[in-house]
Amino acid sequence: MTESAVWPARSRMRPLGGDQTTIHDGFWAERLRVNRERTIPHGLGQLRRAGTLDNLRLAAGAAAGDYRADADSGGAVLPFLDSDVYKWLEAVGWAGDDGLRAAADEVIAVVAAAQRPDGYVNSFVQVVRDGRPYQDLAWGHELYCLGHLVQAGIAWHRALGDDRLLDIATRAVDHAYDALGEEGIDGHPEIEMALVELARVRGEPRYTEFAARMLDRRGHGRLGEGRFGPAYWQDHAPVRTATEVAGHAVRQLYLDCGAVDVAVERGDTELLDAVRRRWDDMVRTRRYLTGALGSRHRDEAFGDPYELPPDRAYAETCAAIASVMLAWRLLLATGEPAYADDIERAMFNGVLSGLSRSGTEFFYTNPLHRRTHRTYEPAGHGQRAPWQACACCPPNLMRLLSSWPHYLATGDETGLQIHQYATSTIRVGEAEIAVRTHYPWDGRVDVSVMRSPQRPWTLALRVPGWCAGATLAVAGQEPLPVAAGYAERTRVWAPGDRVTLDLPLPARCTEPDPRVDAVRGCVAFERGPIVYCVESADLPETVDVDDLRWDPAREVVAVPRPELGEEWVGLDVPVTGGGVASAIPYHAWANRGPGGMRVWLPR
Amino acid sequence: MTESAVWPARSRMRPLGGDQTTIHDGFWAERLRVNRERTIPHGLGQLRRAGTLDNLRLAAGAAAGDYRADADSGGAVLPFLDSDVYKWLEAVGWAGDDGLRAAADEVIAVVAAAQRPDGYVNSFVQVVRDGRPYQDLAWGHELYCLGHLVQAGIAWHRALGDDRLLDIATRAVDHAYDALGEEGIDGHPEIEMALVELARVRGEPRYTEFAARMLDRRGHGRLGEGRFGPAYWQDHAPVRTATEVAGHAVRQLYLDCGAVDVAVERGDTELLDAVRRRWDDMVRTRRYLTGALGSRHRDEAFGDPYELPPDRAYAETCAAIASVMLAWRLLLATGEPAYADDIERAMFNGVLSGLSRSGTEFFYTNPLHRRTHRTYEPAGHGQRAPWQACACCPPNLMRLLSSWPHYLATGDETGLQIHQYATSTIRVGEAEIAVRTHYPWDGRVDVSVMRSPQRPWTLALRVPGWCAGATLAVAGQEPLPVAAGYAERTRVWAPGDRVTLDLPLPARCTEPDPRVDAVRGCVAFERGPIVYCVESADLPETVDVDDLRWDPAREVVAVPRPELGEEWVGLDVPVTGGGVASAIPYHAWANRGPGGMRVWLPR
Repeated sequence: MTESAVWPARSRMRPLGGDQTTIHDGFWAERLRVNRERTIPHGLGQLRRAGTLDNLRLAAGAAAGDYRADADSGGAVLPFLDSDVYKWLEAVGWAGDDGLRAAADEVIAVVAAAQRPDGYVNSFVQVVRDGRPYQDLAWGHELYCLGHLVQAGIAWHRALGDDRLLDIATRAVDHAYDALGEEGIDGHPEIEMALVELARVRGEPRYTEFAARMLDRRGHGRLGEGRFGPAYWQDHAPVRTATEVAGHAVRQLYLDCGAVDVAVERGDTELLDAVRRRWDDMVRTRRYLTGALGSRHRDEAFGDPYELPPDRAYAETCAAIASVMLAWRLLLATGEPAYADDIERAMFNGVLSGLSRSGTEFFYTNPLHRRTHRTYEPAGHGQRAPWQACACCPPNLMRLLSSWPHYLATGDETGLQIHQYATSTIRVGEAEIAVRTHYPWDGRVDVSVMRSPQRPWTLALRVPGWCAGATLAVAGQEPLPVAAGYAERTRVWAPGDRVTLDLPLPARCTEPDPRVDAVRGCVAFERGPIVYCVESADLPETVDVDDLRWDPAREVVAVPRPELGEEWVGLDVPVTGGGVASAIPYHAWANRGPGGMRVWLPR
Repeated sequence: MTESAVWPARSRMRPLGGDQTTIHDGFWAERLRVNRERTIPHGLGQLRRAGTLDNLRLAAGAAAGDYRADADSGGAVLPFLDSDVYKWLEAVGWAGDDGLRAAADEVIAVVAAAQRPDGYVNSFVQVVRDGRPYQDLAWGHELYCLGHLVQAGIAWHRALGDDRLLDIATRAVDHAYDALGEEGIDGHPEIEMALVELARVRGEPRYTEFAARMLDRRGHGRLGEGRFGPAYWQDHAPVRTATEVAGHAVRQLYLDCGAVDVAVERGDTELLDAVRRRWDDMVRTRRYLTGALGSRHRDEAFGDPYELPPDRAYAETCAAIASVMLAWRLLLATGEPAYADDIERAMFNGVLSGLSRSGTEFFYTNPLHRRTHRTYEPAGHGQRAPWQACACCPPNLMRLLSSWPHYLATGDETGLQIHQYATSTIRVGEAEIAVRTHYPWDGRVDVSVMRSPQRPWTLALRVPGWCAGATLAVAGQEPLPVAAGYAERTRVWAPGDRVTLDLPLPARCTEPDPRVDAVRGCVAFERGPIVYCVESADLPETVDVDDLRWDPAREVVAVPRPELGEEWVGLDVPVTGGGVASAIPYHAWANRGPGGMRVWLPR
């Protein structure tokens, strides 16, 4: 068994290894295929084109010239570009594809060559600065980059048994430990979760203690005011006492990932409870319907409670990804199904919207409303781009999709829990099950037991919180109603046993919280885990998405949309004037040229 | 007669000189007194404290040390701080106060000392850069600062007959002319209107031609992409063909001020029409109810049409001020009363909100909604501040209020037009009138003729567009209904003649444009020119402004609010649950401690 990305020594639910779940077919199989065949290779090309690899070559003394900044950055030289290389390497690690693995050898060699004899590696500091490490912890992103190097090393170690990157990363961490073990925190959290995972891999608790000290140092104004005040980097209040998420969304969520990891490792329920409190508040007051997070452009920040403008949503792809990472940690720690619901909402909507159908273009921000009539914009604006000057999101999507099978299921002493539905095979110990489903387009999930030990164990299937009227039929018996949460059946399972979960998927008309000013008087449409939107591409030239008004007197009807994808389902939404507007899954918008789009339709 | 700030050779309406209008009493007299006695002196103290004056002393070689950046700027050294000094000087010029004038002598001496023998003066370039002028026209603000120097010089020349600053400014302009006459534009427009006014003062058309060439050079991508694309600095489309305002709001409005000035000077109706088209579109699609402009924080920009979030409104004080400057130029050029309505809306709401009642604290942004429950904020956030690191707004308020009497009335060959109502004396040639009113709290305006030539002339009184049921009574006759626009009466006026304009001021419930998503399902309340808001300070501790819902079944009632100000009128707005919420004039919010505030109330 190979370990997966998050591998606590103990937790309420136990993750499965990367080789214990295989997705064979259906929605996710197709997205994972595109990630492997298109997105990750495209990423390598872009790392070459943008100069990101060359920057490491400069650090290695293996090339000459200027440190490269992407042309789109307006000449700014960004200090965190190495992390894009590491996230790409992590994606290759979890993808388990021999062709990609071979292509990555060159990249690993570049990283190895860039590392100094003292273990330090950071192309920006080595090339653009004077080589003195840790001089600008607030903005320099050195430990942030290091954290991503560690996570790449762990992926290659766990999934491929290849320790080249892990050895590089460990030497680099030891360098940082010697310099900063007693003082210093990074303006951008990320190192904390990486250190805990490294402690798990290396059996070295001192890395966890290093992370724990960084968590406790934060929140006391050590990072200064910066441009946006101390809350921007979560330095305004201690991680144990802050009651609300604040500041830069990705930073907050990465910080809380590290906090859960430390809490689980040390049995620190106070710390875990602090993260859970923030999560609950965030979901209640600051999350978009699509699972997107962060409403402010200026500082990439969470807004105030209920400040959720659909048009000016920042909704960075990385923030939705970070929420999946954090919800997974909370699910493992607590076993509460709501976290799996949260993962599903983010993945099918706010995460996938970051990626084009082609797999080679990316959104950085994911608004829920784009007006048809726009003031002057540069060409390509509002469309996904092949890469970004600040290219954090593309390789983050790659590594998440590569590791997505990790998120399907967990095991514990009682049995097996299935959290996400895909046509797949899942193996735990002596048990093996096969899942067949056309989810998310169809709500039926068939589970067949292929192998089983000769003792009772519990099969738990998640019934999403949005679902009413779900039923479960076990081994040919009558279907019985099951409530949201985990539908559990305990028995001595035998090969050939079948369980059928039926999740009704009527179109749902969703009212916003009345405290969200920006969408008052509007409704959105959902079906199963999918949030829908109306897009110009489906409207006559003469109709503006912003002029549509929902007509509640008529029914919303689910309709096949085979031109969008096999089995895909759209919604026909009745609008005033007697017609209907064709709604498509939100994550699929902006694949048919520029235009307007709305998730929330006025009544 | 002294000329006022904008003094075209010919225009549809003719401005009056600064000594032709005097405000004696009432709302505006009080604001002007506070400006003179509190705000302008406070400004000098802040220019000293922040180091803005010292920076010019460094340029003069009269001091030693580092170029000063305000502590609030996070260490950033801003290139445009000289302009704060020049705007303050302009404010002193128009204020016509002997005490202030004496205090300004020191400041003028500092500017004079900083000017190089070749005429160039810019403390940032002289101290922080290598002294080579015009190396960074896109971001350097050199011509922007120069424009403000020119306007200060013109104020002192026209209002005080003191040419010290005008001579400094003219030498500096000649330096710029020699260097940039044939090429170059500034990333931040402002110099254009200053050059036209300098041409008027000096009788030198070449300055107008210089401005005209800069206008025509703009819009062809000369400034590059910058951080925010070419529309940010209006370099995406030529000034004659751009149909919509775009980018940084203050830049667009200052540019269009210069365009009107050039158009009027050269009889260029094509250019004038282009500005009018943009103005009309802006008022229709991009203006807040308060007259505020610019909805985006990220690039201080106009958003897309109808993108008008009340909470995240950027609504920079300077943008509202710039709109007053532009509307005044358009009013003079066209004689259309809607521009005077626009000035009134901006002044009573989005401009005045930038200033505390005390006169010594300032808002940079003027949102129309502040939630009670806020995520962590630094102390003082959401309250006006004594100064800002980027202190463009405070001295801009000072100069506008100092010159506010210029905006009351105009004269032309037919007679006198009164645009704004204040208890005042207005003199034109042989005519003199006295205006008495308690406007904006009461809608009655009494005009008495004090002197008059022995020939017929027309008295025109503006009836605001929001006003229904206005009446005009002339010389003891029966009041007659008058429509929005100018109510005109032509006769041979005699001393003692009285005209009474009655503007009914019922509370108005204002529905938003249905295309403004952010306030759908809400209404706002206005009375006369005043926009109202509900503020926490008027609510019981247990009631949150965000939980109030307007109850349309009951009447909104005007009530005296003497504790806010003599004669002030508030509104009691019925809310669900049987109570009322006390609404106060929007511009007066945030004078009673931190809390929530809403202009738009949900139904």
